[in-house]
Amino acid sequence: MRDLLPLEKTKREQVLAIIRGVYQSRGFQEIETPALEDISRLTAGQGGENEKLVFQVMKRGEELERALAEGSELTDLGLRFDLTVPLTRFFASNHSRLPRVLKAIQIGPVWRAERPQKGRYRQFLQCDIDILGDGSELAELELISASLAALSAIGIDDATVRVNDRRVLSAELGKIGIHDQDKAMIAIDKLDKIGIAGVKEEIQHNYGEQVASKVSTWLEKAKSSNLPNELMWVNGLPDKSKVRFDPTLVRGMGYYTGAIFEIEHPSSASSIGGGGRYDEMVGQWSGIATPAVGISLGIERILDLLPEEVAAQKSLVLLVEDQFEAALAAQNDLIEQGWSVRIERAAKNTKAQLAELQDQGFGSFAFFKPGEKLDIRNLG
Amino acid sequence: MRDLLPLEKTKREQVLAIIRGVYQSRGFQEIETPALEDISRLTAGQGGENEKLVFQVMKRGEELERALAEGSELTDLGLRFDLTVPLTRFFASNHSRLPRVLKAIQIGPVWRAERPQKGRYRQFLQCDIDILGDGSELAELELISASLAALSAIGIDDATVRVNDRRVLSAELGKIGIHDQDKAMIAIDKLDKIGIAGVKEEIQHNYGEQVASKVSTWLEKAKSSNLPNELMWVNGLPDKSKVRFDPTLVRGMGYYTGAIFEIEHPSSASSIGGGGRYDEMVGQWSGIATPAVGISLGIERILDLLPEEVAAQKSLVLLVEDQFEAALAAQNDLIEQGWSVRIERAAKNTKAQLAELQDQGFGSFAFFKPGEKLDIRNLG
Repeated sequence: MRDLLPLEKTKREQVLAIIRGVYQSRGFQEIETPALEDISRLTAGQGGENEKLVFQVMKRGEELERALAEGSELTDLGLRFDLTVPLTRFFASNHSRLPRVLKAIQIGPVWRAERPQKGRYRQFLQCDIDILGDGSELAELELISASLAALSAIGIDDATVRVNDRRVLSAELGKIGIHDQDKAMIAIDKLDKIGIAGVKEEIQHNYGEQVASKVSTWLEKAKSSNLPNELMWVNGLPDKSKVRFDPTLVRGMGYYTGAIFEIEHPSSASSIGGGGRYDEMVGQWSGIATPAVGISLGIERILDLLPEEVAAQKSLVLLVEDQFEAALAAQNDLIEQGWSVRIERAAKNTKAQLAELQDQGFGSFAFFKPGEKLDIRNLG
Repeated sequence: MRDLLPLEKTKREQVLAIIRGVYQSRGFQEIETPALEDISRLTAGQGGENEKLVFQVMKRGEELERALAEGSELTDLGLRFDLTVPLTRFFASNHSRLPRVLKAIQIGPVWRAERPQKGRYRQFLQCDIDILGDGSELAELELISASLAALSAIGIDDATVRVNDRRVLSAELGKIGIHDQDKAMIAIDKLDKIGIAGVKEEIQHNYGEQVASKVSTWLEKAKSSNLPNELMWVNGLPDKSKVRFDPTLVRGMGYYTGAIFEIEHPSSASSIGGGGRYDEMVGQWSGIATPAVGISLGIERILDLLPEEVAAQKSLVLLVEDQFEAALAAQNDLIEQGWSVRIERAAKNTKAQLAELQDQGFGSFAFFKPGEKLDIRNLG
């Protein structure tokens, strides 16, 4: 977990405001769920490995005393580890007050009790869009279009999307003779990191030499495969040049039931977003089968791709002595003229003071003298 | 805790964006601290009654096993109950990377394990501005001006501010002969609810009849008191007609050391914001005395004062059959023309479908027919 200092936080909120605006312009609607969910829901088996990383909240008052005395469960709530499990619960809880097709934006923190390590945070932001209640490929098309448009709006024009379909992958493995497929998928998921030889070794260990050879042969020619029927919808994308079929894409072991996607960028070693179709999850809470598909942007990695903020053009430090009333009135006038104005009591060393404020993103300064015209100068 | 549905969440984010913009135009900078803080910090005595309401997070793994075996402390982290305690920790931790005067915006959730009751949430949003490192009255002036400007920008022009100073209140009680003042302040804090007679009764119970009479006499004439020296800065406010001195304002028992304020609105029974000076809190973590003053807006109550959202002028439902590719291209064109466009597969009963989307804030609709000009009509 970490603090966000002014420049980081300001950049983050600017980027999120643009992404939110793009999604809203496509008819997505923002919703919010609480950070805490019932612990039973966070450990119901839908979160895979993440369920082991839940921060658990202790019961309180008499309930805690009873639990301690009885040796029963000490926790009743947990911090969410993603926004998808809460969304499916939200849809089931609020079904009657929502449009029959929900196109949701969610921007919020999630928590995972990982061991502290560089680049991994125990609290981090997720930014998801999901479409619930539409089983047609329009949902996939909209999500990919909207994500690429959002990235483009923040200045990232060279992102690309790899797509696959869990059913295609599964059928392929079936043809090779792999029917208990979990371990094979875990191995293939590591292809980018360990290469074909590495995958082959893992497959051989679990499924024997003959199967491993077949997998290796398949992987070698896989990248040049033709688009299968299940993914023909890709041709309906306005941005289809940015999308390519990758039959080896696995995307974790989770809850996906159909299309899966991963967003990549040439300057980022890891994916900057991803998602897929998870048609069976909502039904687990509501009992009513509801098609669902979502895509999540990796905001921390996306922020790393963007340039540092430069000093704002019309931001001004107004140095004052003690004429606070007149300075506040002048501030109001300047704001009306389109300036951002920070009033600052002049320190003894105004040079150091102004250098510090330039580092904070302020572009200009002026000494305030009541009744005199402001002499606005550039900082630095 | 509760879910925020699309219309509530959209209105909330619009209001917050305006408030954030007003604060930024006055040189305040947004920061963020993690939701979880060390439990020791949340129970160090600065949070008053709120410290009893902390959601405590269990230790994990080996540490939890050890704690259970030893019967030692089971928790190491807790969810923050306000944004002020984390801010003072933030300032102490990041001091060297911050401007010497920090003008901070914080917008984020806080958690309190209250008993569920109407109008009280266990997770709710706080929206604070604070100035750390400026001991002059410029800080009070800026905070009150900025808060009134933010309220005005969201359409609330008739808010007023009551101000007092803890030192003035304390001196007044001293003159009356009350030196152990906690119970007297608790009683006077309830003046609005229980009236002068009610306060007198509580004072009498704790301090005797003679003191109670004096308090009662003081309360009767208090409202017409002249502005004391400690609060002469109020005259430096551009908006001074919206501010009035109230010598009976107490504002809880917390950490305040000087000026205190409360924002009121004729349509709200409770205050819609408040704050004050707390010069001793930062020093508790950093060891370096740092003047500090803050003001917090009660976002939930403020949202209640605002009108329901009306249908957005340029938001359009585009009903499609199955020409997804052409519809996505048309959507892009319309967005460029300034529309928000939600693509929707036409249901059998389009009338019910459109009524539902009108309830969600959409203002117009059109049936999409490839190659034909759109016939855009108002909903409802």
